[in-house]
Parts: sequence; structure tokens; C-alpha cells
Amino acid sequence: MKELEHFTYGIVGMGLMGGSLAKAIRANVLSKEGATGKIYACDINRASLDMCLEQHIADRAFSVEDAPLMLSQCDFVYVCLYPHATADFLCAHKNEFKEGAIVSDISGVKALIFERMDELSGCGFDFIPGHPMAGSEREGYAASNGSVFANHNYIVMPLEHTDAEDLRLFKCLITAMGFTRIVETSANVHDHKIAFTSQLCHVIASALVDSAEDTEVTAFGGGSFEDLTRIALINAPLWTELFLANKKELLGHIEKFQQSLEVLKNGIKNDDSGAIKSYLENVRVKRTAMSRIDTKKFS
Amino acid sequence: MKELEHFTYGIVGMGLMGGSLAKAIRANVLSKEGATGKIYACDINRASLDMCLEQHIADRAFSVEDAPLMLSQCDFVYVCLYPHATADFLCAHKNEFKEGAIVSDISGVKALIFERMDELSGCGFDFIPGHPMAGSEREGYAASNGSVFANHNYIVMPLEHTDAEDLRLFKCLITAMGFTRIVETSANVHDHKIAFTSQLCHVIASALVDSAEDTEVTAFGGGSFEDLTRIALINAPLWTELFLANKKELLGHIEKFQQSLEVLKNGIKNDDSGAIKSYLENVRVKRTAMSRIDTKKFS
Repeated sequence: MKELEHFTYGIVGMGLMGGSLAKAIRANVLSKEGATGKIYACDINRASLDMCLEQHIADRAFSVEDAPLMLSQCDFVYVCLYPHATADFLCAHKNEFKEGAIVSDISGVKALIFERMDELSGCGFDFIPGHPMAGSEREGYAASNGSVFANHNYIVMPLEHTDAEDLRLFKCLITAMGFTRIVETSANVHDHKIAFTSQLCHVIASALVDSAEDTEVTAFGGGSFEDLTRIALINAPLWTELFLANKKELLGHIEKFQQSLEVLKNGIKNDDSGAIKSYLENVRVKRTAMSRIDTKKFS
Repeated sequence: MKELEHFTYGIVGMGLMGGSLAKAIRANVLSKEGATGKIYACDINRASLDMCLEQHIADRAFSVEDAPLMLSQCDFVYVCLYPHATADFLCAHKNEFKEGAIVSDISGVKALIFERMDELSGCGFDFIPGHPMAGSEREGYAASNGSVFANHNYIVMPLEHTDAEDLRLFKCLITAMGFTRIVETSANVHDHKIAFTSQLCHVIASALVDSAEDTEVTAFGGGSFEDLTRIALINAPLWTELFLANKKELLGHIEKFQQSLEVLKNGIKNDDSGAIKSYLENVRVKRTAMSRIDTKKFS
């Protein structure tokens, strides 16, 4: 029987997310008594590799050229690259994974990966697409943090032929890293929902900052503007890719949001206090019904 | 010479904000050795009054009918009511304040109060409008918290005839309560800026929740949606009043935001990755230039 603490983990892309996942595995899985597991890291950035070796997060580091050597030894591989690079990497290296290895990704949009799933058919590894729902406005291995996953959601999208035992092991790993809710769904549902909870929010936060008439407004801020625009400290190349890869779903949500905004704006324009009040009362009820509300500050 | 620790403070409206200000004064001003100051509270809600007496936050409680008795004894009066109620209270009780008392308010919109300033002219108290920039999605005295003001902004709008020593004392009080930045400005500038940093943000957060197709989306959330919609747990009557009282400024900001959103949406619609990337890069630079950025989570 396979056991997580004796696995060799391969992290492809030791950035913010890859580094955080590696740290969470190191702290929560490989720290067990008698654990013989290892973490291997592969990245184009030599400084990141040196840092994770120095910090004893990775046991061995591999250049991109040596990726095949790493993949052939890993029981579990996390591909932590941008969406298109993830699909490209999986297809380019499909024959280099260890037979029976569990492989997952962290791509925020799945359609472009599922479109190329045929290319992976018949390969000897078990690819289980996933999406850890924890992010940050920061970038790179230096900003990674293994304890950031506590109380967060993880979305997994098992395939028709996903091995049940592999899925069970993957879920154990996810739970061990601190995630508290695992949602199993399809790539389509994932892309539709994520376009709302993640991409639409980044679009709104960015547009809000863009519309600010100067950078001095924060002297007049009480926390609301700061809360709404933290994620506007945005990684432009990554989010450009995510917006375009999920364009159809995202545009649909933007339009629904524009309609909702227009209704409230018209209530204000028409001095219709009854309409505004009932709109806001409905919003409060709806938001309260949504889970994971953090009541911060006054508590 | 007047000293803050020997003042009798009158709080009109012992709700979330009035209660928090009273607690901050109790903890930071009246706790000084030798302090002889007192806090008097006036509210329509008997339960709130009982609670603040039991907690030794207020020394005496007054019903609304007894407001004149309270006002006549207070060196500093905080009117912590909704905007229209604040203007009404000041005008109705203008002859009941103690001669020379400093009086301030917390109204989130000032135009409607300044419109009635003539009614207060010649009265023997020194009214210095202000706006403590710290809020919460919660309501009522039970949710109040005196330590919530740390590191927040306070906007003061001295009048032409404001006494310099009174203003100095007021600023000392603000600083003592934990606020770290005091912005002095006019009512017009205040209302224009606040329409952006506060009211527009509440409009956007509410519209975002309104546009959600169900209440289950938070299972797919990673923190962004939660950050953007915490303030959508909105106090409907208060915010309806704030939106309408600052209608012209707010509509201007909503329209600018709609234009910014449309530009980004068109970039996505047209697959214009260059335009999206440069839009997002500008946003990041602009947001970084704004102060008070909290880098949470991955830190």
C-alpha cells in the first residue's frame, strides 16, 4: 500500500504556489516519524532552487533540462506553472513520468488543459486536475508560505478513468496540507464558478483602481477600498492569460455584474429609497447565506 | 487650561460607532491617573444604555427626553447618529449645549449638515465636523470595540470660526483613541473622496453579491470574493441614506468605474492580450503607489 510520507514529490515550478505546496508537504507529511519521502524541485530560476535547498524544503533540485530525470523518480508530481505552460509541459513530458505516478496541476482555468487531454491518453500516469483556492498578490518562491492553506477550499476534477485509490491519496494529501473543504466537480463547472469568484473579482478590483482619480485617495480610506483592491496588486501576465483562457465564462459574469450595478445606480439616480433599501436588504440576506464570512475588525 | 482627562463626554447614540468611541475614550483618556472625566450616554435603546453602564463605559445614561440635561453638562459631545438625524439633533438642541463645549459628529456625508449650518450660527458651542474612517459590517453597541481605530484615518473639517485650541484638543483626542492619520479638509472634498473610497465600494460589493447566481459559489472561493463582499453585509437604511445624501458625487464615481470596467471588458472581448497586460501593469503600479496596502496571508 502506498503511503504519502514515503512518496517522492516532484514540484515543477518552484514559485509562490509550488513553494507553498512544497512547504506544506514538508511540514505536514514528511515531518512524520519514520517518513522516508523526499521533495524534488524543478525550475528555470536557479536562485529559487538554491533557496529551497538551503531551507531544506527540497532534497534535490533539477534544471528544466533535467526534468525527465526528476519525473522518472517521482510518485507524485505537482505541475505549478501558468495554464498554457502546464498543458505544454504535460504533453511534452508525457512519456517521462514514473509508471503509476499521480500527477496534478494548479491551473486556474481548466478548459485549455481538457482540450488537450487526448494527447495524454494511454500514458502510464494518473493525472487528476486540481485547483488549490488560496492565492496572494505576491509572487515567487521567496513569498511562499506553507501555512496559507488552512481553512481554504480545494477543487478536484477527477477524470473518468481516475484510480479511486489515487484519488483517495490525493485527498489525504490535500487535507494534510490544511485545506478544509474539497469540492469534486467537472472542468466546465469549475471554469464557470471560478470566472465569478476569482476572475470577475480581479477584473472589478483592477477597474476600481483604474478609475481612481489619484493615488492620494487612501488618505480618505477606512478599509473598504483597501479590502476591494488588495488583489489589484496583480500579476499582469498570469491574469491576462487566465482572463483570456476563460473568456466566455468571464464575459458572461461581467455582463451580469454590469446589469446588477446598473439597477442599483438607477435606484440612486431616481432617488428611489424604497428600491435601494430592498436591494441592499436582499444583498445582506444573500451574502449572509453564503458561507465563509469573516467578520473582521469589530469582533 | 482644558484637559481631556477631566472632560465630561456626552455620546449621543450608543451604537456601534458611539460605543466604540466611548470605549476608546474610557481606555485611552479616562484611564490616566488622576483623571476626573466622565462619559454620559444618550440613546433611545434602553438595553444599550444598561449594557454600557454595566460595563463601566458610561457613568450615567440619559433617555432621549433627558438629552438637554446631559448636553448642559458636557465639555465634549459626540453626535453618533445617521446623517439626517445628526443635522436634526444639532438644530433641535442647539441651545442646550454647555457654553464653549466642543461638539463633533461622525456622519459619512457632510453636505446635508453644512446646508443647515446657518441654523447653528451664534450658538455658544464649537461644532467641528469629523469622520472617523473605521467601520464594520456589524451593528449596535454590543458589537462596539474601542481598539478598532488603531492605524485608521480621521477626517476633520474645521469651520472658519473654529477655535484653534478646541481643534488642538480634538486632534489630541483623536490621536489618543488610536487614529494615526488626521486629514484636514473641506466638506466638499470630503464628500467627493468618500463617495469613491467608501460609497462606491459599498455599491460595487452589493452589486457583486446581487449578480451571484446562487449562494453556493463560496465553495469555489479562495478569498477574493470574500474580501470584496465583506462590506455587502450592509446596513440597508444607513447606506440608502448615505448613497442618496451624496448622490451627485457617487453617480460620478460609478460612471467612471463603469468606463474603466468597459475598457478592460473590451480588451478581453477582443482577445487583446497586449492591452489587458498593460492595463493590469498600470493598475499594479497605481495600487502600489497608494498607501495603506496590507499584504495579508502570504507574508
